[in-house]
Amino acid sequence: MRGVIMDHQLFSLVQQMTMEEKIAQLLQLAAPFFEGTESEGEITGPMASMGISEQHVQNAGSILGLSGAKQVIDIQQAYLKRNRLGIPLLVMADIVHGYRTIFPVPLAIGCSWDLELAEKSAQIAAAEAAVSGVHVTFAPMVDLVRDPRWGRVMESTGEDPYLNSLFARAFVRGFQGGDLTKETDRVAACVKHFAAYGAAEAGRDYNTVDLSEWQLREFYLPAYKAALDEGCEMVMTAFNTVNGIPVSGNKQLLRGLLRGEWGFDGVLISDWGAVKEMIPHGVAADEAEAAYKAIQAGVDIEMMTPTYVHHLQTLVESGAVDEALIDEAVLRILQLKKKLGLFEQPLRGANPEREREIVFCTDHRDTSRELAVKSCVLLKNDNVLPLKQGQKIALIGPFTRNGDILGPWSWKGSKEEAVQLYDAMATRTEPSLLTVAEGCGIEAFATEEQWNEALEAAREADVIVLALGEHSDMSGEAGSRADIRLPQAQLELIARLKPLHKPMAAVLFNGRPLDLHGVIDQADAVLEAWFPGSEGGAAVADLLFGFEMPSGRLTMSFPYSVGQVPVYYNAFNTGRPKDAPDAQERYVSQYLDIPNEPLLPFGFGLSYTTFAYEDAQLSAAEMTADKTLTVTVRVSNTGDLPGEEVVQLYVRDLAGDVVRPIKELKAFRKISPQPGESTEVAFTITEPQLRYYHSDYTYASDAGDFIAYIGPNSRDTVELPFRLVK
Amino acid sequence: MRGVIMDHQLFSLVQQMTMEEKIAQLLQLAAPFFEGTESEGEITGPMASMGISEQHVQNAGSILGLSGAKQVIDIQQAYLKRNRLGIPLLVMADIVHGYRTIFPVPLAIGCSWDLELAEKSAQIAAAEAAVSGVHVTFAPMVDLVRDPRWGRVMESTGEDPYLNSLFARAFVRGFQGGDLTKETDRVAACVKHFAAYGAAEAGRDYNTVDLSEWQLREFYLPAYKAALDEGCEMVMTAFNTVNGIPVSGNKQLLRGLLRGEWGFDGVLISDWGAVKEMIPHGVAADEAEAAYKAIQAGVDIEMMTPTYVHHLQTLVESGAVDEALIDEAVLRILQLKKKLGLFEQPLRGANPEREREIVFCTDHRDTSRELAVKSCVLLKNDNVLPLKQGQKIALIGPFTRNGDILGPWSWKGSKEEAVQLYDAMATRTEPSLLTVAEGCGIEAFATEEQWNEALEAAREADVIVLALGEHSDMSGEAGSRADIRLPQAQLELIARLKPLHKPMAAVLFNGRPLDLHGVIDQADAVLEAWFPGSEGGAAVADLLFGFEMPSGRLTMSFPYSVGQVPVYYNAFNTGRPKDAPDAQERYVSQYLDIPNEPLLPFGFGLSYTTFAYEDAQLSAAEMTADKTLTVTVRVSNTGDLPGEEVVQLYVRDLAGDVVRPIKELKAFRKISPQPGESTEVAFTITEPQLRYYHSDYTYASDAGDFIAYIGPNSRDTVELPFRLVK
Repeated sequence: MRGVIMDHQLFSLVQQMTMEEKIAQLLQLAAPFFEGTESEGEITGPMASMGISEQHVQNAGSILGLSGAKQVIDIQQAYLKRNRLGIPLLVMADIVHGYRTIFPVPLAIGCSWDLELAEKSAQIAAAEAAVSGVHVTFAPMVDLVRDPRWGRVMESTGEDPYLNSLFARAFVRGFQGGDLTKETDRVAACVKHFAAYGAAEAGRDYNTVDLSEWQLREFYLPAYKAALDEGCEMVMTAFNTVNGIPVSGNKQLLRGLLRGEWGFDGVLISDWGAVKEMIPHGVAADEAEAAYKAIQAGVDIEMMTPTYVHHLQTLVESGAVDEALIDEAVLRILQLKKKLGLFEQPLRGANPEREREIVFCTDHRDTSRELAVKSCVLLKNDNVLPLKQGQKIALIGPFTRNGDILGPWSWKGSKEEAVQLYDAMATRTEPSLLTVAEGCGIEAFATEEQWNEALEAAREADVIVLALGEHSDMSGEAGSRADIRLPQAQLELIARLKPLHKPMAAVLFNGRPLDLHGVIDQADAVLEAWFPGSEGGAAVADLLFGFEMPSGRLTMSFPYSVGQVPVYYNAFNTGRPKDAPDAQERYVSQYLDIPNEPLLPFGFGLSYTTFAYEDAQLSAAEMTADKTLTVTVRVSNTGDLPGEEVVQLYVRDLAGDVVRPIKELKAFRKISPQPGESTEVAFTITEPQLRYYHSDYTYASDAGDFIAYIGPNSRDTVELPFRLVK
Repeated sequence: MRGVIMDHQLFSLVQQMTMEEKIAQLLQLAAPFFEGTESEGEITGPMASMGISEQHVQNAGSILGLSGAKQVIDIQQAYLKRNRLGIPLLVMADIVHGYRTIFPVPLAIGCSWDLELAEKSAQIAAAEAAVSGVHVTFAPMVDLVRDPRWGRVMESTGEDPYLNSLFARAFVRGFQGGDLTKETDRVAACVKHFAAYGAAEAGRDYNTVDLSEWQLREFYLPAYKAALDEGCEMVMTAFNTVNGIPVSGNKQLLRGLLRGEWGFDGVLISDWGAVKEMIPHGVAADEAEAAYKAIQAGVDIEMMTPTYVHHLQTLVESGAVDEALIDEAVLRILQLKKKLGLFEQPLRGANPEREREIVFCTDHRDTSRELAVKSCVLLKNDNVLPLKQGQKIALIGPFTRNGDILGPWSWKGSKEEAVQLYDAMATRTEPSLLTVAEGCGIEAFATEEQWNEALEAAREADVIVLALGEHSDMSGEAGSRADIRLPQAQLELIARLKPLHKPMAAVLFNGRPLDLHGVIDQADAVLEAWFPGSEGGAAVADLLFGFEMPSGRLTMSFPYSVGQVPVYYNAFNTGRPKDAPDAQERYVSQYLDIPNEPLLPFGFGLSYTTFAYEDAQLSAAEMTADKTLTVTVRVSNTGDLPGEEVVQLYVRDLAGDVVRPIKELKAFRKISPQPGESTEVAFTITEPQLRYYHSDYTYASDAGDFIAYIGPNSRDTVELPFRLVK
């Protein structure tokens, strides 16, 4: 019973369970397996071939993808009637960025740099899910991401381990609240995908991950750890290999690091089918070996494959697997059920009446709009935005009247309920001033009719607003693209409108950093709206008209082209940096044909006003473990409009035991000085902020020279050298 | 004196040396530092700022980039006059694929799959270099390469650890011969770049390398080890980091693995400037720390930076560095000098008279032509090649009359001496049948004049031969490209010629696998000539006219597009392979927009004839450690012309302790059945071929299921399942 808090009541319950009952607790099945769900018919299908018996279903410890208060109540009640020991069913679901009120995709939420709103979004998602009968969400996803080809970058908050860690904590707080037993309007969180799923080779989903343990610890692990430090109840294994071993069978990573070194004693669940996928991965010859490796590695719940229910009993009987491993897994699951209060209230928060009241209520939608406003990033603006009163606007593009702006993982979200951009703009200006045309399809080139309509609209307008992007299936799980430009049809639309010489603003709805050539060089303004969620159109319209001020900042670099990936701000200097004072022309680390720098760097984003940074200074030239430093800067709103600035502090360690990033985000502050006003921003630098993983994996700082950088993004900074003295 | 064979004579010499003399032995300077070299004037330049004194130069243990029998003799004699103890100077140079007789670039040599010719090319390079006074070559480069953006892929033999290992051994044999003391027409080899330089992130030269130790051992290290097993005298450190530490300061990799585990007791040299580059890398605060880390790690010779000569003495005096480390390094260098016979014959092979006789002699050039013929890979051929007698040929493109076909690292090779394609073709057909036009520049779009000339030539021809490619600076060191297509100017040339509907064959001169869209879909035939060396034009002309038969096979995958890299044949299956029988449509490892497969796979290449594979079979269904298996197949020449086929054997281990590649090359055989004839090919599979690195780094095989694949390339194979029984 390593690492599990003893609970005599639960322990005794485990002792009463038959081996079959225990093993069934470790099985998670999708909703269609259970009677009474809407999609019952689907059980004949691929799922039927799983080899799951009625007995397995009746005792399966958890269910996946079920919600709706009435359905959950019905299923729980039916389940408990049949369950010999009255152990309630655990209901889990993918509530990733909202339940039915859909918030912006997590990558967009990251760009808000707004931890409070992020937490609130998770709290609302939890409230809607909990009242609909869900107990656990498969979120947050905190994989560090550097390759925009990978479709799942939209699920992450970006490329920075520190920022990802802060968001991981915020989401966990939002989902779980302070006490899952009492607060039945919260759900347990399940941080994923442990570990390093974001490093899928060549950006192809489910592909091999290979990195050094040092890289893993320094960059990829911190956000998972942060979620656990915040009390996250569950962890999900990643589909990928780490160090040549699929995570679901990776004993060193799971039992060694996660359970041992980190002391995680919550429930560890495989991703969908990941246990059995050890067979195609080629580390298990058959189901029995997959089951063996998973239980040995420490996977408690097997999601959607039957290797545990088919083989664990035999493995125990043959002595290959210690029964204690199974007891331990069962105990963890029961412990979570107890913590969720399910033994006392098996229906927990499920409440049909309240469900009707709060799900997709105005309050929730308001928060979604607010977060969408904060998530949009203004990438370019040559005096086009905000739109001016009285301007005749031609709104053109495949996202003008398109509800596909929720993004992937919007299970209960409805595209029909999403606020479309045209509708929102039409309520914010005089109808006679707004014309709309589709222009072309997302991937389909303009028909003659579409083009003529667009051309007519554009000709009569003072300004063109383009609504462009990727449909939601172009990112998300299994949504990898080798070409990360906008589809050619839309690039052609821009190119054909360009010769009209009208001011042109492009709004982008998409799930990944794009190669923006053909957009940012053509349009006079570009607003990255990502997939902004249920109120997306409203948020974007508010920003376009200047009812709201853009304040988002990129948390993932926009590459110059796909030939540059992976490109990320917290990279290493190399031995031959291109920009060194004594650098040769050729023999430096560079491409012959493109810059080293991304097109748009981490931390970047514009406002409708301008900010000036002055008097950046350090309180001293040296610091010690006991004596911190203060970095101060005065930031002035030098434009004519209000606006919010994200003041960013980066640090570089000039010489370490291992190479250190050229910049690392250490702190940030959001400020909103009024036009003509200034705000003094102060950051404290402390010794723990300077710690990193050494080659022997000790986490410590070294005495020596550092540089503090302060500025509006990771590129445009002023530098302030200092020393850490020990 | 760990790992160094004791030699009392040399040991006593070391004892006579002053600390300054010892440390100077560890310094390597470029030729311009030494009096009497042709480029003496250059010492005022960046080199002057190195802080090297006359004293350092006079005692520096080795010189880099010097050759020419007379110059070397002069410098050696002058050096010995001043050297107190009469220790001769060691002369090293970059003889990578030929000295003055330039052979195809190593990636092309790899495509020959011809180990004997590869060895012969190294032997000729050694002979020309040795007679010109060179003692050591900085070759072979055996870095495993998977990313064609990286310019130095042309220096490697490709993406397969087994084939790279065979070529590593062949090159070492060719350079070193059997006895360096007696055979003064050979040179010592220096395998590079240890380790894993080929994994530079995002294909940007000098960039971070990060991989797991398992990946390092299984894929990246074998070729270095093979070179050492063949007796390679020296090792060069890589510029990159491994596990966060630049190799030149990576004690675990150098003293731990290379010297300790592998027992390497030869000379370890840094790459150019790599010791001091620990400062920009950020693992050394200053020169002293760089020197400290390099000597601790085990670097004997510091190339072209002065940290050893400036700081080692102080480091020894302060007790930070054990003097024994320096003695050990000096002893290794003296040992190499002794092995090269320099104490007895300080001028060694340098011989001005013989230099004039053999350097760039007809024999050597013949071998170069022969190897170039074997290195070219026919990628497509729709009945265009070989050219037919009497055909009117329009030879068009920037490589028609261009000597820039030697490729990078052709130090003493002269573009003026290279056989150009037009000249070679003109001697192989009637002059009236051949017209030539440049068409466009390599990167410069066609002028009107160029286009008109090309159009006229094309219109009057029966067949168009395009000579296209990259100029040699577009690959090689610091030659990374983010766009790996042919330059747009050339793609446009093809597109403009296409509407003439003439048969069109494209010959490509380039240093990396290219994205061939716009070429292979437009031309009726494509011959990959790489940078074929001094006799390149002759070799290509022989192939085009059918005087020789193409037989090269790719040793590096040609990606579908740059958005697919890295892509390589010996990858892993993943848990959700796209081609599995029960695979879902979406939730598999794939791109939405391109195939998973490269455009052209490893092992691929066409002939002017066709081959059929029949009756592939195994001698038994099971094998053991003692009982090998035999795979046999009958390969028939089913066409009308002779031709050479490379029959390839791959193996897959279906379940391992770690994931195993979907295919691994295990053996190959070159055969040349005459038209209508067959050859029976047999391979033996033995237990050691099935070994691999387990998660605990033991190297062993596992009982279980395997598949043997046999075929003409890594894609088009037949499979034969078998079992290893233990």
